[in-house]
Amino acid sequence: MYGGIETGGSKWECAVGTGPDDIRDTETIPTTTPDETIDRAITFFERAKPVDAIGIGSFGPVDRNPSSSSWGHITTTPKPGWANTDIGPEVQRRLSVPVAFDTDVNAAALGEQRWGAAQGLDTFCYITIGTGIGGGGMAGGNLLHGLLHPEFGHLRVPHDTAADPFAGTCPYHGDCWEGLASGTAIRSRWGRPAEELAGRDDVWELEAYYVALGLVCVISVLSPQRIIVGGGVGTAPRLLDRVQSEVVTLLNGYLDADLLGERIADYIVPPALGRRSGVLGAIALASTGVARP
Amino acid sequence: MYGGIETGGSKWECAVGTGPDDIRDTETIPTTTPDETIDRAITFFERAKPVDAIGIGSFGPVDRNPSSSSWGHITTTPKPGWANTDIGPEVQRRLSVPVAFDTDVNAAALGEQRWGAAQGLDTFCYITIGTGIGGGGMAGGNLLHGLLHPEFGHLRVPHDTAADPFAGTCPYHGDCWEGLASGTAIRSRWGRPAEELAGRDDVWELEAYYVALGLVCVISVLSPQRIIVGGGVGTAPRLLDRVQSEVVTLLNGYLDADLLGERIADYIVPPALGRRSGVLGAIALASTGVARP
Repeated sequence: MYGGIETGGSKWECAVGTGPDDIRDTETIPTTTPDETIDRAITFFERAKPVDAIGIGSFGPVDRNPSSSSWGHITTTPKPGWANTDIGPEVQRRLSVPVAFDTDVNAAALGEQRWGAAQGLDTFCYITIGTGIGGGGMAGGNLLHGLLHPEFGHLRVPHDTAADPFAGTCPYHGDCWEGLASGTAIRSRWGRPAEELAGRDDVWELEAYYVALGLVCVISVLSPQRIIVGGGVGTAPRLLDRVQSEVVTLLNGYLDADLLGERIADYIVPPALGRRSGVLGAIALASTGVARP
Repeated sequence: MYGGIETGGSKWECAVGTGPDDIRDTETIPTTTPDETIDRAITFFERAKPVDAIGIGSFGPVDRNPSSSSWGHITTTPKPGWANTDIGPEVQRRLSVPVAFDTDVNAAALGEQRWGAAQGLDTFCYITIGTGIGGGGMAGGNLLHGLLHPEFGHLRVPHDTAADPFAGTCPYHGDCWEGLASGTAIRSRWGRPAEELAGRDDVWELEAYYVALGLVCVISVLSPQRIIVGGGVGTAPRLLDRVQSEVVTLLNGYLDADLLGERIADYIVPPALGRRSGVLGAIALASTGVARP
């Protein structure tokens, strides 16, 4: 029996179970202050069934290097009050269980590989487009880690400021991918949140274009076998088919693969686990043996 | 004893040996037609010492999937006469030796990991900026492969067409990274080849800016532990220090690592094997046991 926590910028999802068909208990906790939010998660696990390990998939940037002194911390996040927050060690200490810690998107990628849209693949990406943009995945069967971890949201994409003078919302980079195409960017650009703009073709055509530009970078660097696009904005109606079409147009036949042409709908796909990729992936992470005792 | 071939767009480098300190024979062959070029390479290996296997690092795009019927072929290259060229199987058949086949940049990455600037690393990139731009490397200790293989040159970077109206030289994408920052782009933009523009600060400042934009994408997607920049343009005097500085500026402190700040000169580095990364990497590739009998 494993525990999973997906720490998001607006809420934490906690669950106990062994997989999508065996979830024994769940709780959704609003993200307030670090102390209060972590306390509520601890309380949930104290009341739930005992678990052998807990997996945490966290918003970031995080330190997920098991040999680092700040392992299990959120590091430089611009989210007020959350920079340099100890999460992994705190959960480990207070619940006395081994903890596995990674990014939310790597956890979601692992969940999709175990039970969802990336089964049988060893090189693929999971990208979430919501309040921000994040990306993770696997290369050659290993979750993507390197110097730090991927931060897809902060790659730079072409931005024709004559056609689109919007300056972007990223506090670090202005018009990076996240600054132009996240839910935060949509709200700032159009004056209303994405969910109130469902019928606006102009909104979703521009959004699809920027999303596709970022995906072309990901395809060029990693050559994933599949790209899973989740998140509240990423799974908005009629976005993904536009993104698929834009990616094919942008690649322009350079890469010789059916999946990058007529079969693009099998290449850029929604998460098979829906909104549960992250918390289920956190459970998968707890079960992989990488948990730190 | 192993053979290595680096097939480049302008020349092929062939070598026989076991590593940088033990090269028994070499030959440089101008790239003309496929038949003539392959013939000359075959003749070299027939005259040289017998080898246990040959590694080939090829310009591309290539098919390096060992289970594909077009394994060992160059596929959609825009280079005249070279699309759909059988290289790996031809060498294998005519010399009756096992052949390992990968991209030129993955071979160079492997060479740098075995003997050069990536020793001890498991997640890093090798990028060449010459006639074109290519990139390869490793993630988690495996060479980067996925649906196809990385094609760093074709990622899209910001391009302010008001400040820089140059349309780019990529026949597929116009102003993709390669279209803006390759040696071909420099020659087209400034009317002279890069080597005749050594003293021109404006040339190298713009070049460094575009190179840095591409590197920021690579860092965002892969989080490499180090980036090796080779190639005739990539190793031009006074380019790399400008690129290092631009990357730090563009990242703007978002990613918390000394190597992306004050230690950037240890992060973006030239190849330790100089111009021999590719052919030595091809020898390394031949010795890895992935050669197809």
